[in-house]
Amino acid sequence: MPSTATPTTLAPTPSARIGHAPINFAHKFSQIDALWQPRVVAEMNDYQFKLARIEGEFIWHRHADTDEAFIVVQGRLRIELRDGDVELNAGEMFVVPRDTEHRPCALGEVWLMLVEPRGVVNTGDSGGERTAPNDRWL
Amino acid sequence: MPSTATPTTLAPTPSARIGHAPINFAHKFSQIDALWQPRVVAEMNDYQFKLARIEGEFIWHRHADTDEAFIVVQGRLRIELRDGDVELNAGEMFVVPRDTEHRPCALGEVWLMLVEPRGVVNTGDSGGERTAPNDRWL
Repeated sequence: MPSTATPTTLAPTPSARIGHAPINFAHKFSQIDALWQPRVVAEMNDYQFKLARIEGEFIWHRHADTDEAFIVVQGRLRIELRDGDVELNAGEMFVVPRDTEHRPCALGEVWLMLVEPRGVVNTGDSGGERTAPNDRWL
Repeated sequence: MPSTATPTTLAPTPSARIGHAPINFAHKFSQIDALWQPRVVAEMNDYQFKLARIEGEFIWHRHADTDEAFIVVQGRLRIELRDGDVELNAGEMFVVPRDTEHRPCALGEVWLMLVEPRGVVNTGDSGGERTAPNDRWL
């Protein structure tokens, strides 16, 4: 009987060959139960990919020694900078240059991915009560 | 007169304060006109974020000195590894460890983001005609 399947040039992977699991962002975010608490989901050399659910305003801070990449997975994020702001929607990113004061402000709840070197503290050189522990994996 | 606006704790950004532009992935992908030609869209320290449109099978190769992060923005990607494969849909990522042979296979067209150190060559130590030039920005 004729097949109605769409032709493909790539054979499907036999299930026996599946040996590794992908990191699914939506699934990881669903496991995060606190705001402003970044969770590590992957490492690449000495860099980490961190996911965070955030809402409202953070504090002004800077990271003296490193750039910091922000990728918005869901929601709308404003990053305030001293010389003007940037607004990010889902599917957009921005790299805050090292030693640049900035303040993330989530306009409603935002699902955020950060990429930065292992050991970077969320509050940079400002410290204080909003400092989150590092190296908490999901 | 009473306002019907939804209450918010965050004032909107006055347009005069917008000073920086986000990187919009969909817009960047729409500007890529060739398959398997990664384009740099951002740098963070000595790392690069690259976007590529890919389709079909690549070649087996390895990067002796670095891990390599794959993030699927659209489509479905299988990364074959010698000890089993991983399949990624949109919103999923995987980090191929350094010195690990792998072969990306896009099941239909895939919009892919790579994160890796500046200077990494797409064909790793295999070289050949599918080697793409580096440091081409969008």
